[in-house]
Amino acid sequence: MKNPIAQKNFLLNSKLAQTLYKKYAKDLPIIDFHCHLSPKEIYENKQFKSLYEVWLSGDHYKWRLMRANGINEDHITGQAPDYDKFYLWAKTVPLLVGSPLYHWTHLELKAFFQENRLLNEQNAQSIYDQVNEQLKTKTAHYFINSSKVQTICTTDDPLDDLQYHQAILKQNNSFQVLPAWRPDKLVNINLESFLPYLAKLELVAKKKIKTFDNFLAVIEQRLIYFHENHCRLSDHALDSIDYLDCSTTEAQTIFTNRLNNIALSDKEVVQFKSYILNYLGKLYFKYGWSQQYHIGALRNVSTNKFQTLGPDTGNDAIQDGLIARGLAGLLNSLDKTDQLPKTTIYTLNPRDFEVAITIMQCFQANIAGKIQFGAAWWFLDNIDGMEKQLSALANNGLLAKFVGMLTDSRSFLSYPRHDYFRRILCNFLANQVKKGLYPLDIAMLGKIVQDISYYNAKEYFGV
Amino acid sequence: MKNPIAQKNFLLNSKLAQTLYKKYAKDLPIIDFHCHLSPKEIYENKQFKSLYEVWLSGDHYKWRLMRANGINEDHITGQAPDYDKFYLWAKTVPLLVGSPLYHWTHLELKAFFQENRLLNEQNAQSIYDQVNEQLKTKTAHYFINSSKVQTICTTDDPLDDLQYHQAILKQNNSFQVLPAWRPDKLVNINLESFLPYLAKLELVAKKKIKTFDNFLAVIEQRLIYFHENHCRLSDHALDSIDYLDCSTTEAQTIFTNRLNNIALSDKEVVQFKSYILNYLGKLYFKYGWSQQYHIGALRNVSTNKFQTLGPDTGNDAIQDGLIARGLAGLLNSLDKTDQLPKTTIYTLNPRDFEVAITIMQCFQANIAGKIQFGAAWWFLDNIDGMEKQLSALANNGLLAKFVGMLTDSRSFLSYPRHDYFRRILCNFLANQVKKGLYPLDIAMLGKIVQDISYYNAKEYFGV
Amino acid sequence: MKNPIAQKNFLLNSKLAQTLYKKYAKDLPIIDFHCHLSPKEIYENKQFKSLYEVWLSGDHYKWRLMRANGINEDHITGQAPDYDKFYLWAKTVPLLVGSPLYHWTHLELKAFFQENRLLNEQNAQSIYDQVNEQLKTKTAHYFINSSKVQTICTTDDPLDDLQYHQAILKQNNSFQVLPAWRPDKLVNINLESFLPYLAKLELVAKKKIKTFDNFLAVIEQRLIYFHENHCRLSDHALDSIDYLDCSTTEAQTIFTNRLNNIALSDKEVVQFKSYILNYLGKLYFKYGWSQQYHIGALRNVSTNKFQTLGPDTGNDAIQDGLIARGLAGLLNSLDKTDQLPKTTIYTLNPRDFEVAITIMQCFQANIAGKIQFGAAWWFLDNIDGMEKQLSALANNGLLAKFVGMLTDSRSFLSYPRHDYFRRILCNFLANQVKKGLYPLDIAMLGKIVQDISYYNAKEYFGV
Repeated sequence: MKNPIAQKNFLLNSKLAQTLYKKYAKDLPIIDFHCHLSPKEIYENKQFKSLYEVWLSGDHYKWRLMRANGINEDHITGQAPDYDKFYLWAKTVPLLVGSPLYHWTHLELKAFFQENRLLNEQNAQSIYDQVNEQLKTKTAHYFINSSKVQTICTTDDPLDDLQYHQAILKQNNSFQVLPAWRPDKLVNINLESFLPYLAKLELVAKKKIKTFDNFLAVIEQRLIYFHENHCRLSDHALDSIDYLDCSTTEAQTIFTNRLNNIALSDKEVVQFKSYILNYLGKLYFKYGWSQQYHIGALRNVSTNKFQTLGPDTGNDAIQDGLIARGLAGLLNSLDKTDQLPKTTIYTLNPRDFEVAITIMQCFQANIAGKIQFGAAWWFLDNIDGMEKQLSALANNGLLAKFVGMLTDSRSFLSYPRHDYFRRILCNFLANQVKKGLYPLDIAMLGKIVQDISYYNAKEYFGV
Repeated sequence: MKNPIAQKNFLLNSKLAQTLYKKYAKDLPIIDFHCHLSPKEIYENKQFKSLYEVWLSGDHYKWRLMRANGINEDHITGQAPDYDKFYLWAKTVPLLVGSPLYHWTHLELKAFFQENRLLNEQNAQSIYDQVNEQLKTKTAHYFINSSKVQTICTTDDPLDDLQYHQAILKQNNSFQVLPAWRPDKLVNINLESFLPYLAKLELVAKKKIKTFDNFLAVIEQRLIYFHENHCRLSDHALDSIDYLDCSTTEAQTIFTNRLNNIALSDKEVVQFKSYILNYLGKLYFKYGWSQQYHIGALRNVSTNKFQTLGPDTGNDAIQDGLIARGLAGLLNSLDKTDQLPKTTIYTLNPRDFEVAITIMQCFQANIAGKIQFGAAWWFLDNIDGMEKQLSALANNGLLAKFVGMLTDSRSFLSYPRHDYFRRILCNFLANQVKKGLYPLDIAMLGKIVQDISYYNAKEYFGV
Repeated sequence: MKNPIAQKNFLLNSKLAQTLYKKYAKDLPIIDFHCHLSPKEIYENKQFKSLYEVWLSGDHYKWRLMRANGINEDHITGQAPDYDKFYLWAKTVPLLVGSPLYHWTHLELKAFFQENRLLNEQNAQSIYDQVNEQLKTKTAHYFINSSKVQTICTTDDPLDDLQYHQAILKQNNSFQVLPAWRPDKLVNINLESFLPYLAKLELVAKKKIKTFDNFLAVIEQRLIYFHENHCRLSDHALDSIDYLDCSTTEAQTIFTNRLNNIALSDKEVVQFKSYILNYLGKLYFKYGWSQQYHIGALRNVSTNKFQTLGPDTGNDAIQDGLIARGLAGLLNSLDKTDQLPKTTIYTLNPRDFEVAITIMQCFQANIAGKIQFGAAWWFLDNIDGMEKQLSALANNGLLAKFVGMLTDSRSFLSYPRHDYFRRILCNFLANQVKKGLYPLDIAMLGKIVQDISYYNAKEYFGV
């Protein structure tokens, strides 16, 4: 049976789409400006002992589908033998009609292991064995280099000493690995973990945090440390996005109350978060960074699963909180004083696309594509989601200045998602011509493909 | 003029779609696991005196479109002669371009009356007469049997004595008719009808309901009665879905206050509903039932129409309340104690599809497709709605385990909606191959078609 | 390079679509029942000194895209020379793949100036010069007449003396220009401008407004004045839509408190707005007008831009407030007493389409298409938005009775948007046939095209 995903024209439904892809997209390097790879594993050029380990042991996308297929947890994340788990995944794969996992699975097998068979229970053992053989020599750097990855931005806590980033720098790799600043724990004053986190922060910063001013100063100190380690990008998980004005005096009081274990009202929590997001935004502006807002995740939905398996185990969903006033308020709070940094907004709920895009356009100024609407994310990282993101952006924004794709992944095998995106992009643009909506201007279309695939990100993030 | 709806390849836009439909879908029996047919009418094998009676006298879908066409209520639900109403419906039909009613109308005329003409004001009389002639011999059981319906689940109040279900059992039909438990009146403590309903419940259960414990016991007693009458399925109309934790003590107090006509706060109403939904869910789990949540209707919108015509008269709409926290909270309350039964979630607002699907996936465990995302419902029961439901489910769930279609109808003529769905399903799957997203694996595609059309429901509902 | 937008079959993707357009849509006059043209400029038959003035000096759609392209404000709305601004717009145009602005731009150049070149930085000067030459003789009336505009409804404040409408009447034009009543300032009691507005109202009405009764009387007085000046249409900008019952006594108290500068609660503001919207609705019903609700704009998002540039400068977005209860409540408040006038509902957030359409259908009665779901508006005025509006309406309403397109524009060059809409409509209908969902009934399809393009609006608005 022919493997359609392995065809060179996969997703390219016209001659023009094929030309755009082949001539302008295919061979460009990758700037993967947001992912969750481990800097330690990159540094160590991690070797994986099996296809199970590299592919299934940490991939909650696959786990969710295995659960939906009725497989018990023991054979997903539990104690069952690695191959047994892999086998059950292989058995699930042929059922995945319409799922992006069907495509990712076969794109990854082909890209890294020249495996063009369609995975199923019959060939599971054979594919497992032959990939495991290859994994003896194919290690983390192989996956990065063979994918032409030029830049990787990891996701790092402000506490992080960035030792692995420093060590990687000395490795003389053909790719660069930059930290990205993910300060959620500085923002989420309502969580139990806030005070213990401050304690760690004091240790790392070698400063006492007795006042709100201390707190702000330590934040900037850590941010400077990240800056010195070449970080130019932040990322915020704003599961919900509310905004309320908050004076420094108010923020001080809220912070002091929190230190003294005085319960905060919901309003105070929102005010404090607003204050800190504004403070951080101004720092990003000051240091020339750009920021990312990831809006709309509902996390750790099943308490049962969370307590058994922990976070990031396929137990998250899409939130439906309102975002317009919060997003507009937050951006406006920075724009008011002309301190709004470059910002990329991702919304996880597809029904928020038009709201986010039209709000973001109110803050465009002076820099091409200064405010970005991020690529289709997580549950939307599929053909429908990407096409919707592209068309929503084209209808109400300037698609040509889009910074494009990122993997957002914990796996070294996820780089083909860039290829997936580029094919969808080329097909989308070719369809504009096919439908008579744009002229057959190959040069301009080719430039737009190149820009969205690579050059816009390079310019925007200055990497 | 050619009637395109009567063509054998209606909705089947490729050879593969046609093959899948003809070979795997067309001839399978129907499990109609959720409808609003009258058990009495089934038992009595109701004979209809005219096409008006069987088709128009109870169909609020048609009424809405007649109203939109400017027809006065007297000629819709009022005192005008039956044929006059039918004539005005016939006159409306050619205007229905893009409406599912255009398709249902002609599918039903063809399926049950071999009538292939396109209904309009010119042929209204002729079609009326020839169908009426056929109705002399074609009665309720004819519509059921000729549609190859194997199982019908009706929608029944916990008060119901199920005498017609019992009587039908003795009829030696080729189809089975099972009750389904719709306990909304047990849940909606805020309605004026709650206390009168309790009074009826006391009579039926032959027990006094003086305490909350009495209430819970009577609920289980009625549920056992339904269970003994072969009910294995419940259905909840959750127009809005909120969830708040509620201890038994709190629920007792709220219930007692209600008995004593003490006004309840909004919070108390939500708490009580949450408690009872959780209690019922645990009973379903205990007795091996599955539950259905129908979320998002806004009912009885025009007070004027409601007072004149009553409920279920085409006076309902789509709600836009937020659902993520409520749905997650409710499912989690059952999952926490490992008592979450099999659950099917329907959302009436299409913007909630992704939210509901990603939340539901957090609760999958051990049973294939344990938590289902229900078929496109009511206002979404059209080609766009069904295709959106299929693609949303395929993108973030496991489409292959979907239990498929139901009529949700009050009419004996609605079974062709299963055929409509199967054609759309075959076309959707064939398109995956056509677009190069899935291999031309006829055996696997055929199995998926069969499963979604019939076998998944059979297995899931144990019928 | 071929200009696809200038092709006669632009957007018409089948022979049938081409036939429907050519035979039934193309040559019909235009009823532009909602726009923001200046009656003064119409009266004066305004002459424009350059393509910059007629095209760019007031068009915030273009400004937003120029900002997204990194152009500084000085070269958009600021002090830079006209041609420099035009040049930068021309330079932006080739980047607009997927944007409706790409189509509007070239449709307008072709329709009014026979300019078939694709605008870019190379030909900017040449196109500018040749259009400017034509603008010496082509003035406002030329744009109106050459577009076959029959009726224009402007947007006017209740304070307006309508002198230009009166003067235009005497001009013996081939088109009529009617006022439309936009009473937002009578409704928005919460704004600072409310009391100053009352002061102006007193002057214009030559009556003191000392009591709520005075206020209501003056409103009706002004409405009668508009009625005498041939106004039959109102328009409300309901950025959010909430509804709360409000007795006359309550409204009196709220109004009196406002006169006395006593702060109003949020609830009181909603109550007062509800009361006035109900009061106005009843007046519209009494005088045989129809009303329009524009729901869901988030205005003046960036405070910075608002303070620098003012309103309507490309600083607005889509709101995401819930609308179901408010919209249903408001319509119901009028329907209860049988005083609901003809109403057109526009929702700016595409996720509200299904909610609005299904609610509106609950209020249909006696008049064909009495409650209308308005054309895709503002940020949705593009191919995707229009197709979504058409299919949502067709799925749950009666598309054939739709009153169709309006420009909603401040520019004399926007009439080709009607042509854009008609092509999309013809293509949509032809696709129904192509997909086998509707018979090849050219006469009926042609009638539907004609009705939606022209006759429905003519009948509905009585113009």
